[in-house]
Amino acid sequence: MRPVRAAAALKRLAASLPEGELRFDEATRTAHAGDKWFASALPDAVAIPATTKSVARILSFAHHHRLPITPRGAGHGYVGGCVPIRGGLVLALDQLNRIKEISAADFVAVVEPGVRTLALQMAVEKQGLFYPPDPASRADCSLGGNIATNAGGPRCLKYGVTRDYVLGLEVVLADGRILRLGSRTHKNKTGFELARMFVGSEGLLGVVTEATLKLLPRPPWRACLATGLPTMAAAAATIRKIFASGFLPCAVEVADRFTLKAARQRTGDRRLEGCGAVLIVELDGHEASVRGELKALDRLLKEAKPRFVQRAYGPENTERLWQLRREFSYALRDTGLTKMNEDVVVPRGRLEDLFRLGSRIQRRHGFPVACFGHAGDGNIHVNIMVDESRPGYARRRDAALDELFSGVLALGGVITGEHGIGLAKKPWWRDAVPSEVRALHATLKQALDPNGVLNPGKFV
Amino acid sequence: MRPVRAAAALKRLAASLPEGELRFDEATRTAHAGDKWFASALPDAVAIPATTKSVARILSFAHHHRLPITPRGAGHGYVGGCVPIRGGLVLALDQLNRIKEISAADFVAVVEPGVRTLALQMAVEKQGLFYPPDPASRADCSLGGNIATNAGGPRCLKYGVTRDYVLGLEVVLADGRILRLGSRTHKNKTGFELARMFVGSEGLLGVVTEATLKLLPRPPWRACLATGLPTMAAAAATIRKIFASGFLPCAVEVADRFTLKAARQRTGDRRLEGCGAVLIVELDGHEASVRGELKALDRLLKEAKPRFVQRAYGPENTERLWQLRREFSYALRDTGLTKMNEDVVVPRGRLEDLFRLGSRIQRRHGFPVACFGHAGDGNIHVNIMVDESRPGYARRRDAALDELFSGVLALGGVITGEHGIGLAKKPWWRDAVPSEVRALHATLKQALDPNGVLNPGKFV
Repeated sequence: MRPVRAAAALKRLAASLPEGELRFDEATRTAHAGDKWFASALPDAVAIPATTKSVARILSFAHHHRLPITPRGAGHGYVGGCVPIRGGLVLALDQLNRIKEISAADFVAVVEPGVRTLALQMAVEKQGLFYPPDPASRADCSLGGNIATNAGGPRCLKYGVTRDYVLGLEVVLADGRILRLGSRTHKNKTGFELARMFVGSEGLLGVVTEATLKLLPRPPWRACLATGLPTMAAAAATIRKIFASGFLPCAVEVADRFTLKAARQRTGDRRLEGCGAVLIVELDGHEASVRGELKALDRLLKEAKPRFVQRAYGPENTERLWQLRREFSYALRDTGLTKMNEDVVVPRGRLEDLFRLGSRIQRRHGFPVACFGHAGDGNIHVNIMVDESRPGYARRRDAALDELFSGVLALGGVITGEHGIGLAKKPWWRDAVPSEVRALHATLKQALDPNGVLNPGKFV
Repeated sequence: MRPVRAAAALKRLAASLPEGELRFDEATRTAHAGDKWFASALPDAVAIPATTKSVARILSFAHHHRLPITPRGAGHGYVGGCVPIRGGLVLALDQLNRIKEISAADFVAVVEPGVRTLALQMAVEKQGLFYPPDPASRADCSLGGNIATNAGGPRCLKYGVTRDYVLGLEVVLADGRILRLGSRTHKNKTGFELARMFVGSEGLLGVVTEATLKLLPRPPWRACLATGLPTMAAAAATIRKIFASGFLPCAVEVADRFTLKAARQRTGDRRLEGCGAVLIVELDGHEASVRGELKALDRLLKEAKPRFVQRAYGPENTERLWQLRREFSYALRDTGLTKMNEDVVVPRGRLEDLFRLGSRIQRRHGFPVACFGHAGDGNIHVNIMVDESRPGYARRRDAALDELFSGVLALGGVITGEHGIGLAKKPWWRDAVPSEVRALHATLKQALDPNGVLNPGKFV
């Protein structure tokens, strides 16, 4: 659509929506130009609908006029997934932010996409219920964004990712049709798995306007161990032992020497000195069970000759211990370097190979490489720490990323476990996915969004 | 395709395949005409390919000649899903029956679709690993069939259904293209959720020729309680209490008075006399934890004034106690009545409404109604027991089924939780799924199987 006609058309759209749902002012447009990644692009306008009906009207309009439309959750993504690189409209879902229902009888919550993840978690826990997915940004990110990226988090080791909690969705298709998919039952085998097809689709297939999420009984108690180990290899060996003893902890997180050094500097925690790895293991369940299992874990950890073991009993102490984990990200930022946080995943048995790959990249390209993350899942955040004040950094950074992703793929791994492709991983999309599978993506996209208006310029 | 031309074309296909992969003899055709449901239809030929390459050749041929092709697992489905009602070819996957790999390091198994579910479970448990999905027919059914129907089972309460264990698939599309979807990593956010789109697609979208399945650490110990309660309402109330105390047992199963009476007659177990419900609860994990939690459960059950409580400690005793559960199906068969086993699901809080619906159908239509199944999931097998010797039974049976399904839908439930739609539920497909969602099924089907050759005559 040519600019002049686009502007005129957008005026007509604005007139058909409730006051204030379509905004053209620069402040709003600027606020919706990017996410937590580097790219940004100004949209022509920002739609902030308050109802599904408005969402349907906006999409139907965009479909008809072939106007690019980029759906947006809370803008806390790490891959530029909601950057409107083709201009047009940003469709911000912040106003659809009600928790419509929490049912302790049916073990479901019905939410709009703008609800913050932590807000839902706190609300359901008050009623003795539990919504497990816990991305690090859960205080800021939205459930709609979690669904668009199939978000994970530490607890996903035991409890699975966002997809595993999506029972039903209300979705608006590209042409404005409103669908109610799935159900509020915990099991359903009626037809194809359509609701979950939209999970992780990064805004390319439809817009979620309501989700029915599965809840669990809240585990009554939690406890946690943190332990300092000499090397990442020792950490990987310890993780293997934990699984071999029949434990499926709710989380098994790891951090490497570089991360720990930064964390030591930030927190002043002297125990971290000289540690090559820290492992954090969380258990949940009934108190007596967790206490007993923690003792068994403790014995198991001692075999690895740890530099320290810190135990946290009960939810409050556990939360405090997790602060250490949360400091990792901030500590890396404190270094003043630019953190390229790549959420790669390797098959579980290839963790040590991944750590070796990180060291090799560090040696070859002259960037520190900091690894931390969800070791139990094989999902490690590999952070390439770029000094942007040094000449030629961009070329060397891209070469380092190239080596990381090709190395991970060679290990049978994948280039993203939680963040998605967005813009950040788009250059490696073709390496990561064979041509016939990319063709199937295109087939699906064509079937659901024939005019290509939803989040154009991304990986399909 | 007209019969004469079809026969000639099939001869050509046979010549292009290895000896014996395409069979025309009546014994083979008859053996592949039906499943565990009532319908059957003779195919023109049966393909029993030994390789993915043959599967691709067969599908490409069928696509080109618009020849109906009905994929088939072990033929243990309950809804006629693999009945070739349009004739043509049955594509039997029995020869693709290798466990290609079990990796204790990566916690994955790579299997062909013809592998029996129990065979995989036994093989992985020997290595300290665990594949949870446990449909009642697990000794006979195949993993390919489990994937096609997204099979469940008692343990799915805690561990999820087949879908949750599918990390990667090799799929042959209708036109013969071979795709490798997903990965062997436990997390993956590369592109759309294409592998899981084929899970539960009942052979309508593609043919699975290999699956990479997620494994868990084997829980070291199991234990079980069975308890006789006065009424189904008491059972439902007890289940609520179990969840409210923060338990997520690996299974919570229930059986009603009619089922128990039949089981009493079959087994001679006098404890079942006068019980209105039996509840079976299984826990797994570390031995000390399970023993402790079982005590707490025991206390909780006593509040319901049970007629008996039977405890089973350890895997062998637990397995013996489960025999009781397995007898339910046989016991109902012993009655000489024809069992219409409908795997409906209601929202968890509506169990008692479902039991009331069962009683109403019994009163109104004059059939005994036996309920048992996965109470924790809201997934109850409602068995309408039809006496086929009585005149007019077919009309009354259909009216009873109508009332069951419309009643379940009115409760916010779904008409199938485990078995799928197939032929058995096809008459209620339109009631269960709104027209715009049926249209989306058709869109997807059209995109993936434009000539409509895969499992034609079913719900799309």
